[in-house]
Amino acid sequence: MSKRALSVTREENFPEWYQAVVRDGDMAETSPVRGCMIIKPWGWGVWERIQAELDQRIKDTGHDNCYFPLFIPMSFIAKEAEHVEGFAKEMAVVTHHRLKNVGGKLELDPTAKLEEPLIVRPTSETIIGDAFQRWVKSYRDLPLLVNQWANVVRWEMRTRLFLRTAEFLWQEGHTAHADRDDAMAETMRMLEVYREFAENILAMPVIAGEKPANERFPGADNTYSIEAMMQDGKALQAGTSHYLGTHFAEAQSIQYQSAEGKLEYCHTTSWGVSTRLIGGVIMTHGDDDGLRVPPAIAPRQIVIVPMLRDKPEDASLLDYCAGLEKDLKAAGIRVLVDAKQVKSAEKRWSWVRRGAPVIIEIGGRDAAGGNVTFMRRDKLRDGDKVISQTMPLAQFVSEAPTLLSEIQASLFNEAKARLDANIVTGITSFDALADYFGAAADSDDEAGAFKGWVKVAWSRPEGAELDAIDDRLKALKLTIRNAPLGQEPVAGACVFTGAPAKEYVLIARAY
Amino acid sequence: MSKRALSVTREENFPEWYQAVVRDGDMAETSPVRGCMIIKPWGWGVWERIQAELDQRIKDTGHDNCYFPLFIPMSFIAKEAEHVEGFAKEMAVVTHHRLKNVGGKLELDPTAKLEEPLIVRPTSETIIGDAFQRWVKSYRDLPLLVNQWANVVRWEMRTRLFLRTAEFLWQEGHTAHADRDDAMAETMRMLEVYREFAENILAMPVIAGEKPANERFPGADNTYSIEAMMQDGKALQAGTSHYLGTHFAEAQSIQYQSAEGKLEYCHTTSWGVSTRLIGGVIMTHGDDDGLRVPPAIAPRQIVIVPMLRDKPEDASLLDYCAGLEKDLKAAGIRVLVDAKQVKSAEKRWSWVRRGAPVIIEIGGRDAAGGNVTFMRRDKLRDGDKVISQTMPLAQFVSEAPTLLSEIQASLFNEAKARLDANIVTGITSFDALADYFGAAADSDDEAGAFKGWVKVAWSRPEGAELDAIDDRLKALKLTIRNAPLGQEPVAGACVFTGAPAKEYVLIARAY
Repeated sequence: MSKRALSVTREENFPEWYQAVVRDGDMAETSPVRGCMIIKPWGWGVWERIQAELDQRIKDTGHDNCYFPLFIPMSFIAKEAEHVEGFAKEMAVVTHHRLKNVGGKLELDPTAKLEEPLIVRPTSETIIGDAFQRWVKSYRDLPLLVNQWANVVRWEMRTRLFLRTAEFLWQEGHTAHADRDDAMAETMRMLEVYREFAENILAMPVIAGEKPANERFPGADNTYSIEAMMQDGKALQAGTSHYLGTHFAEAQSIQYQSAEGKLEYCHTTSWGVSTRLIGGVIMTHGDDDGLRVPPAIAPRQIVIVPMLRDKPEDASLLDYCAGLEKDLKAAGIRVLVDAKQVKSAEKRWSWVRRGAPVIIEIGGRDAAGGNVTFMRRDKLRDGDKVISQTMPLAQFVSEAPTLLSEIQASLFNEAKARLDANIVTGITSFDALADYFGAAADSDDEAGAFKGWVKVAWSRPEGAELDAIDDRLKALKLTIRNAPLGQEPVAGACVFTGAPAKEYVLIARAY
Repeated sequence: MSKRALSVTREENFPEWYQAVVRDGDMAETSPVRGCMIIKPWGWGVWERIQAELDQRIKDTGHDNCYFPLFIPMSFIAKEAEHVEGFAKEMAVVTHHRLKNVGGKLELDPTAKLEEPLIVRPTSETIIGDAFQRWVKSYRDLPLLVNQWANVVRWEMRTRLFLRTAEFLWQEGHTAHADRDDAMAETMRMLEVYREFAENILAMPVIAGEKPANERFPGADNTYSIEAMMQDGKALQAGTSHYLGTHFAEAQSIQYQSAEGKLEYCHTTSWGVSTRLIGGVIMTHGDDDGLRVPPAIAPRQIVIVPMLRDKPEDASLLDYCAGLEKDLKAAGIRVLVDAKQVKSAEKRWSWVRRGAPVIIEIGGRDAAGGNVTFMRRDKLRDGDKVISQTMPLAQFVSEAPTLLSEIQASLFNEAKARLDANIVTGITSFDALADYFGAAADSDDEAGAFKGWVKVAWSRPEGAELDAIDDRLKALKLTIRNAPLGQEPVAGACVFTGAPAKEYVLIARAY
């Protein structure tokens, strides 16, 4: 039995702990629709902050937001399937546009069958490419830099809230450029936007790098990702940026007239992050008392819980809290007074589980003394004991912005130390790699000990050689995550092929 | 041939003029998917401002944003159809979850047929009601105040960009209350939020009132709307707020334990506005030169066009513009320097057609003299002549916020004067009503002269009597819009039944 606010600890059972945080932190719940989630107010508030912060960065780098249709004609998808290998076919298909009442029972109306089925967008390359083909005429129209925030659907068999759901929310950037250099610069620029955003806003350290050929987005020349380490040692791909070459442009006739009057194909890119980031935040920062939300994305950075006693004195306590709220708001802080008619201990723990960065409890003594008693969610306990601090109200208000910055930094530093300490190097053979991760395919990776990631040298094989390596890794439930950018010069032989190594790659179990 | 920036005037052909504004104002375009639109950057920017302003008001009135699934199980819809009369059945139905490659051709995979079809949400009462049934236990959980921003789909046969599309974007508020009084207060509160928002932010005067029984949302006890007058005299229903009684609560077992320990049904409400508002803004404020966007929702309130000549002097011109941009940004104004390599006249007219509230053109003389030359989009011409003003830069910057407020007010006042001047009273018989609107059903209401609205006294009939009136009005392409709130005491007999009148209602052609 846990001595913490959740019924299960990370060590006992990480997947169950994750579910408990999502549920008890009021983030999301499953719905009656297979694989689709209901995002609850606290979870939605986190997503709103993620959207606002990332949207600003997307606009600051020159992109315009647009909105494209939810549905994609099946012929578009068929065309993509022709020129793209490894194209996923699990998608929601709309075949009818009307129901009818048959003897009091609602049924599909067979007379309302669509001539061409419509696919609920799994991603929008094809429908946006079709618009690009109309919008791009001359080199003067380039680069064309577009983003949309949208829901997408991919039929997933095993779903997990935020991490893998049939419907999820994301942003998808789509851009067209005159040449490879400009498109590659865009691809790398957006990868860096994701890295900076993940680290500074989500307080989630990541490693940016290039995916191996077998992990590329279907149709991409190069795929780059940011990878984050979860507290169970697994990797979470938190964002991707793709250079698509001229594949999509050729399939969709996205052409422009150059300054020299020649007709040329555009080079395109796409890049996206999704509600999956929230799963990453939970598994990066959560502890056995629940979620810890970084202040930059906390819907409420400070929550004030008045210790009401259903007595006349409550009124002055509420006044005191309202004054504090006003002062904190004036300092630009997102603050809430939780005046619900519920026991204050219950309210305190509900905010602990939700992970509000700072929780203030105001009792009669605080109000009388002009003080504020508060808990930092990032440093909730000393051993088992919950710790709080008391200081004069004016001092608290003036120090609050710094306090929130400190919490943001402390969450990042804690995660960064974990990431840095758990990338193992020095493994030079496949056998040693297998040994390290526990050798057998039947090792239960869900409950396994923390293994982190391994960084090995490889020769960057492609084709059948890479497929064989992929199979050997899959048998160990491992994947190559990426080849980190800006890495040190490589030495030695490839851990897989024995050929001279070309670079280092990260290997891990992954979500 | 029009002497204006659009190829067609409002007077020549209002529907074609509308299409021209949408197209040439870079607001939206049709997509390859029947009835679904592509919202372009300028149109999307307007929607972002609408969302931001309205979202703040929704939060300020105590509502939490959530997100519910895109899909609704067919059984939920079937249940609703059972207890709700007049339930629309035109909806997109998902029947399969996979495609397969058959001899190089992509087809539906018959093995991937869903056991239960899924409906793409046309509105979310049923799926949100299902959550409410789980979330509400006690009177302490009430009121439950939820909103979501989402895309919805209704299969429409005749579509028109923004006004009626198969997929559209909206917010839908859903709330549960302990009793009728509280739910009715919520219904009216949100109607007032819509009215205030439409008038102060969209600069679109509206009349708030109650819909007649035959125009209620299926399942509602009372439906209220805000109605706006378009420049062709037609009414646009711009937002609705419904008191749903206990109908949905009874069908879905949304019950709570009262303070006295009794199990009671909740009283629920719902309310929404959609991307249709953008159509309303266009038809309220557009003129023959294109759109005029109210400053409060303009993605760029001031656009600076440097008159570049592809010469070395361009650099200092751009510096001057950058300085002006910085000063205006510091004043909290959304500003853009359009430095594209396109002729400045072309850029000027593209911003006129988009309806940027203030368009500045900076030439060498302005820069040398430290001046700003600008056009107000709301007062673009004197007769046929385009008018501009010049003033010192510092003066322009200091007066810019006031200028934008003036433009906001002038757009509202112009529309308000039109609304007030075009509600005809004094019609006391159905024949006179028919005469006023042109009598015959074959009168072409698209090209017809401006007729505005008529306010008549009626006896508030319901049932078969109301249906008969509805039929007579429909033959004239007319509908009852609403019974305005806070109206003066009624006198005389009902224009339809001859019985003593109970209130006034507005009658109009409508979108």
